[in-house]
Amino acid sequence: MDTLPLVRCVGVTAPQPSLQDNTADLDRLRAALVHSLDQGLATRPLAIPFAAMGPVAARFREAGFSGLAVLNVLPDRLELADFLAAPPPLLPAMALDLGTTHLEATLLDLQTGSTLARAHTPNRQIEYGADILTRIHFAATGGKGEAGGLARLQQAVVESINSLAGDLARHADITPQAIRAVSVSGNTTMVHLLLGLDPYHICREPYIPLVNAPDPLAAADIGLAIHPRAPVWVLPSTGSYFGGDLISGILASGLDRMEETCMLIDVGTNAEVVLGNRDWLIACAGAAGPALEGGVARMGMRAGPGAIEHVRLDRQQWRLEYATIDDTPPAGICGSGLIDLVAELYLARIVDLRGKLQADADQGPAARREFIRARLREVDGEPAFIVAPAAETAHGRPVVLSQVDLDAMMRSKAAMYAILTTLTGQVGVAFSDLAAIFVAGAFGRHIDPRQAIVLGMLPDLPLSTYRPLGNSSLKGAELILLDEEARRRSGEIGRRITYIELNVNQEFMIRFSGSRFIPHTDPALFPSVPVFGNGRRAGKA
Amino acid sequence: MDTLPLVRCVGVTAPQPSLQDNTADLDRLRAALVHSLDQGLATRPLAIPFAAMGPVAARFREAGFSGLAVLNVLPDRLELADFLAAPPPLLPAMALDLGTTHLEATLLDLQTGSTLARAHTPNRQIEYGADILTRIHFAATGGKGEAGGLARLQQAVVESINSLAGDLARHADITPQAIRAVSVSGNTTMVHLLLGLDPYHICREPYIPLVNAPDPLAAADIGLAIHPRAPVWVLPSTGSYFGGDLISGILASGLDRMEETCMLIDVGTNAEVVLGNRDWLIACAGAAGPALEGGVARMGMRAGPGAIEHVRLDRQQWRLEYATIDDTPPAGICGSGLIDLVAELYLARIVDLRGKLQADADQGPAARREFIRARLREVDGEPAFIVAPAAETAHGRPVVLSQVDLDAMMRSKAAMYAILTTLTGQVGVAFSDLAAIFVAGAFGRHIDPRQAIVLGMLPDLPLSTYRPLGNSSLKGAELILLDEEARRRSGEIGRRITYIELNVNQEFMIRFSGSRFIPHTDPALFPSVPVFGNGRRAGKA
Repeated sequence: MDTLPLVRCVGVTAPQPSLQDNTADLDRLRAALVHSLDQGLATRPLAIPFAAMGPVAARFREAGFSGLAVLNVLPDRLELADFLAAPPPLLPAMALDLGTTHLEATLLDLQTGSTLARAHTPNRQIEYGADILTRIHFAATGGKGEAGGLARLQQAVVESINSLAGDLARHADITPQAIRAVSVSGNTTMVHLLLGLDPYHICREPYIPLVNAPDPLAAADIGLAIHPRAPVWVLPSTGSYFGGDLISGILASGLDRMEETCMLIDVGTNAEVVLGNRDWLIACAGAAGPALEGGVARMGMRAGPGAIEHVRLDRQQWRLEYATIDDTPPAGICGSGLIDLVAELYLARIVDLRGKLQADADQGPAARREFIRARLREVDGEPAFIVAPAAETAHGRPVVLSQVDLDAMMRSKAAMYAILTTLTGQVGVAFSDLAAIFVAGAFGRHIDPRQAIVLGMLPDLPLSTYRPLGNSSLKGAELILLDEEARRRSGEIGRRITYIELNVNQEFMIRFSGSRFIPHTDPALFPSVPVFGNGRRAGKA
Repeated sequence: MDTLPLVRCVGVTAPQPSLQDNTADLDRLRAALVHSLDQGLATRPLAIPFAAMGPVAARFREAGFSGLAVLNVLPDRLELADFLAAPPPLLPAMALDLGTTHLEATLLDLQTGSTLARAHTPNRQIEYGADILTRIHFAATGGKGEAGGLARLQQAVVESINSLAGDLARHADITPQAIRAVSVSGNTTMVHLLLGLDPYHICREPYIPLVNAPDPLAAADIGLAIHPRAPVWVLPSTGSYFGGDLISGILASGLDRMEETCMLIDVGTNAEVVLGNRDWLIACAGAAGPALEGGVARMGMRAGPGAIEHVRLDRQQWRLEYATIDDTPPAGICGSGLIDLVAELYLARIVDLRGKLQADADQGPAARREFIRARLREVDGEPAFIVAPAAETAHGRPVVLSQVDLDAMMRSKAAMYAILTTLTGQVGVAFSDLAAIFVAGAFGRHIDPRQAIVLGMLPDLPLSTYRPLGNSSLKGAELILLDEEARRRSGEIGRRITYIELNVNQEFMIRFSGSRFIPHTDPALFPSVPVFGNGRRAGKA
């Protein structure tokens, strides 16, 4: 690799100690090491952390004063972490996407950049609260000190990471202690809880985190069961609602180096959006996500096995087809399935432009009438649409879309579009000016942009504008491990971004109201989408 | 003060957080702090250690985002240690002379440089061995791990320091936690044991320490019960037998900045000698000390209350007068008393040029004959001289100088002179070229250079050449706390010194043999000293 990873081995051969050369072990190692450093590293001071002194000196001596120094490559200094007698076959490091509900990680070899293993695990903090707000509350109210709320949340996530490290190590046939570095990409609250820092002010106006850009720490500082002196590099955040996972997304998409203006959309619990290019970056975040992430709809679920991720309604035969993740019997519907479903129901005129389940079962061809009679029911006293009948599902109950779910979905899609228009409006950029829209995460991987356009959730642009990024939080963390330039960029991005707080943005509220129709109160914004109702009809239904 | 102390308070006023300025607490503090730094500090990177993040952010917020940052001023970076709402009345720091048997400390105010308190305490490691070699042995054989030999030695010295910190704090009416920095000046082994580092190779050829110049650490790293993030600055050593206490002596004497060549002598358990000026420094150490320090002679004792520190023999009245430290009844005799005594006995021709108690009680005036009969006895089958009769002493037994003690003393004085001549011989400097000879420690404070010259222990130079330094180990540690220039110099001195290993020096052994007479086999080296025997007699007896 011609990039500079976070940890590097440097070959060192020191002169043997003698009565004529009584330099101490570590001073001997330091002197020989400084001479062995290449130009890029030689200008940085070399620190030998207290915890490294005893073990490193012992291993240097055992190795006969010749071998490889393991260096943590920090921005303003090098840190001596270990000494090896022989070149290691691997230099494993862990890139971590620290999600609120799930952790996902890659084990990389820092010598070659190759991927050794991947793994994921639930965030054990869920025991103390499903969402961020509940956990912040628990941190404040669950008691103080070592058995207090904050400490328990920290312990839970550290246990999750250690379990993940164990899985990765098993896959790669190494010990967890052989993992020499970790990069962490997570939202601001998750990072606070991992570091044992009080998240109290994150969710209270004016929404100020305790830290945005923590200095690298040592794995042992927070009890990670990997190499104790492995550096833990935490991606910086920009405010309480724009976390390191987003900075990772910018890194992975390269938004900060683009000549043309592009956009990055990440939908998790929040919808987070960045607009910019190599000259400027502007961002905002808003609560658009719950319905889309599957956390709110009655039958909603995360994009996992058994989730209906795609829906197609054949309007000739009036047959509904769906696809589930892993092709298992359906248990619920995830964000992309919900978007598909509502878009299809809108095009079939079963959902109206206000987002209401309201179909006239007496109109249209017989097949349509039959379909509506079979699928549109009252469930628990409110209108609902049967997506999958009980006989087909994993749990023996029908998977339904209720009006309540649909209302939540409409708010989410309205919020999403309002966020996008507010952000572009702030800098006077038209959607048509965008060279690309990167869509991160599970949302980006599963969503059909065409359907999102039909709903008026995403702007009506050529489909090629939309580029799925995959888990860009994890990809950014991987770049951090492998490339010093990415580490430098991450800090720069954190400082460069102008963040707009939507919670108090008047314009956002106006735009939000205008977006609560399918596709929009101003259908001219969505020329490719047919508009029904109000006597007007466009396109073909 | 116009020097730069190890810890400094810097006033900071940060803008209040708002929805328009959502910078995180620590990033806010960092940004405001960087703007507040004066030229000398502004070029250094500012680190926020992991342990500081939570507490500092909380105090910054409590203080309303305005107050004083407490900074550890390290050579290659600044470390944020704390935040105070108001200027502190004091910024206390502890300078520590970490001796093998005793610890001595000063509490300084880093804001004014003034001394707040002094204290001393025994080194509790004595429980595991009186001398360095016994402790190194115990470290290796006392078991491994947390209850092992090394760990117990570390714990013992940490307890001693904590007790000292408690005493200092009481005297100054502060809490120990208010102590914001420590500088440690000790021999190489003591430093290893304090840091919990294996001293095994220090006493084994080729005598290589584990570390000479450790990076500053945090008080909490080694369990010091002062401010947990107080920097612990350990003076560097140059090899196993030239410790930080000596580097302190060079700092305190200013030897490394002298235009003219000077010498520094420190007699502790070893005799350690440095020769040099601002252009070069050469040093050696040798086992000259035990008899002089009071550790070997049967009636020997450390320079403390009840120790006979001065002896005068009136050769007209033949009356022996002595002075004890603190004027208490004598309990033994310390190094300076021993030197006085033997010099006086030599001049009185009761000790001969070979260092033997051998007086003809039948010669000379009656008073002399009477004196010799009363004082020269056989004790336990060997000749001995009664320094203080039983009736005068603290313990009711006479304080005596036995021939065995005298022999040890002769070896010590011979070693001392041999060390001095070997060292000057190495660089071709004559004693008469020396502008000053600094004599450190209790030895320097109590010794009468004239008597040492009579014995042939120190070179026959004008008495004004000899300058007592006091506890220069402690003085050097004080300078480290107060002055960055001293911190820089200490590292430079450590690297500049050429150290000569006397254990394997052939020339030293030859010179040692020549020095085993009073004053020397070559009396021409000591023109001011009368020489008796061999038919020659010089000066007045």
